[in-house]
Amino acid sequence: MRINSKAPFKTLPDAPAPLTASIRRRVHFGECDPLGVLWHGHYPGYLAEAREALARACGLTYEHFLQADASVPIKTMFLDYFIPLRFERVYTVETAMHWSDAARINLTYRILDQEERVATTGFTVQLMTDAQGVLLLDPPLFYRRFLDDWASGEISRKLNAG
Amino acid sequence: MRINSKAPFKTLPDAPAPLTASIRRRVHFGECDPLGVLWHGHYPGYLAEAREALARACGLTYEHFLQADASVPIKTMFLDYFIPLRFERVYTVETAMHWSDAARINLTYRILDQEERVATTGFTVQLMTDAQGVLLLDPPLFYRRFLDDWASGEISRKLNAG
Amino acid sequence: MRINSKAPFKTLPDAPAPLTASIRRRVHFGECDPLGVLWHGHYPGYLAEAREALARACGLTYEHFLQADASVPIKTMFLDYFIPLRFERVYTVETAMHWSDAARINLTYRILDQEERVATTGFTVQLMTDAQGVLLLDPPLFYRRFLDDWASGEISRKLNAG
Amino acid sequence: MRINSKAPFKTLPDAPAPLTASIRRRVHFGECDPLGVLWHGHYPGYLAEAREALARACGLTYEHFLQADASVPIKTMFLDYFIPLRFERVYTVETAMHWSDAARINLTYRILDQEERVATTGFTVQLMTDAQGVLLLDPPLFYRRFLDDWASGEISRKLNAG
Repeated sequence: MRINSKAPFKTLPDAPAPLTASIRRRVHFGECDPLGVLWHGHYPGYLAEAREALARACGLTYEHFLQADASVPIKTMFLDYFIPLRFERVYTVETAMHWSDAARINLTYRILDQEERVATTGFTVQLMTDAQGVLLLDPPLFYRRFLDDWASGEISRKLNAG
Repeated sequence: MRINSKAPFKTLPDAPAPLTASIRRRVHFGECDPLGVLWHGHYPGYLAEAREALARACGLTYEHFLQADASVPIKTMFLDYFIPLRFERVYTVETAMHWSDAARINLTYRILDQEERVATTGFTVQLMTDAQGVLLLDPPLFYRRFLDDWASGEISRKLNAG
Repeated sequence: MRINSKAPFKTLPDAPAPLTASIRRRVHFGECDPLGVLWHGHYPGYLAEAREALARACGLTYEHFLQADASVPIKTMFLDYFIPLRFERVYTVETAMHWSDAARINLTYRILDQEERVATTGFTVQLMTDAQGVLLLDPPLFYRRFLDDWASGEISRKLNAG
Repeated sequence: MRINSKAPFKTLPDAPAPLTASIRRRVHFGECDPLGVLWHGHYPGYLAEAREALARACGLTYEHFLQADASVPIKTMFLDYFIPLRFERVYTVETAMHWSDAARINLTYRILDQEERVATTGFTVQLMTDAQGVLLLDPPLFYRRFLDDWASGEISRKLNAG
């Protein structure tokens, strides 16, 4: 099994550049396991925080999906742990959203420890569904408009300005 | 500040006996903190599991509340920790629901460690609200019927039979 | 049962003023329950984050306790919920440490929602123990020095400067 | 990216059969997200519970690793979600440990919903390290004995008897 967790998604050469965001966080006592490091099972929550921060910065809200009777549940999640994170230390979760015009969201993640070393990498795939959980063939209208803004560079400008 | 966490609720002498249930659980690695004991912040979830087990055994379901456009959020929660729980050890969460004919649910909890010592005690108060979060003056109809069955001893018989 | 969660600790009139800190946080999707609000069981973790922030600002570290072969586990925790916190909204957790020269730490908490309304109040009591979990009669030396600095106003100056 | 989450590990034709265990659990209210389903971020904890159950049934304990100054942190984790799990429903987490005589542990997982449908699949890889986190080239002695017992069929007999 070989998973390229740094570049799991094929990208066309002329695709719009990824959209990126990051959050900074500190390791809390109750998140650490008996070995004194951040327990691996907490990481999906930190990926989720970074994902939410990116969505918010892009102007994509949960409300948009709700109003379109759509949802974007996690379909697959992969995490590759290199360096443990220790109590009281600060870390950064970077996320990048990779272009796709399908009814899916492809994200990669990089967690940097306080010394800026790559501590963890990973990716998630989210598939869009209707309110009954049936997969959508195409993204909802509001999301296609978001893709247009991404392709035109408007979203990147918004992220850089933020 | 003096809180009697073992008997926080006043009980009338002729009130129906409390309804009780318990769950058994094992301490998992990821729930333990750097001191190797169950982190205190996880306990509210175990109280909730015991509460759900009691409600299920009593025939009270979330669906009942939903259909009555009602909810029973936690209003107050108190925990008193005596003995830490250690990795791999088994513990028991006992809960007792104390009689009240008001739009509230009063529960006490006792957590016993593998040696059956009282490791933690606590209580919760839940207040019934409508779907908008406004406090109900009286319990919904389905709950008043449940109270009748409690008063008549039918619920206790169901719990003992289960 | 009547608990004054806003002022649970008796304070002598000439005691040094409480030490305070606060953190700001956003409600994440995975922390919300089926009713769309922050699940009550997650709150102990947010109290812990505020507590850690205050300790860090005061110069009290986990290392200090470790080196003194001491620990400060939570003995009691109380939470009183007034207003639910909703997805994507920002909230503030304020904490205040109340003077005691005993081997204990008394903290109160106030959670304010995005509109600055008091959403939740609470308190915790931590008792100091040795590495075997036996209660200490007196605080370790490093902590008595901290109390001296608190009494002299030095800690408050540090917090105000931070 | 193509990950075969059902058979991620290459198996030699004459390798000892996988060791298996399973746990049953119920979905709790506080684990469900605003869509009313088990939030994806909680799954690593359920994989861990199944993993611990298998280790316990095999006679492999955390103490063994501690005494050998060794640790087996998660190196990679993959989850593939097919069907959401709903509040109050029961589910089963099955895990299978796949033969390897290297200093690693390879596990696959299958989560079945109450109707016995495959709701989620996944795998984890754990790499053995010393107490300083340095990768071990070979498993500790106690683990090599465990491998001998696995190869001889003794562990399987123990699991079947349990």
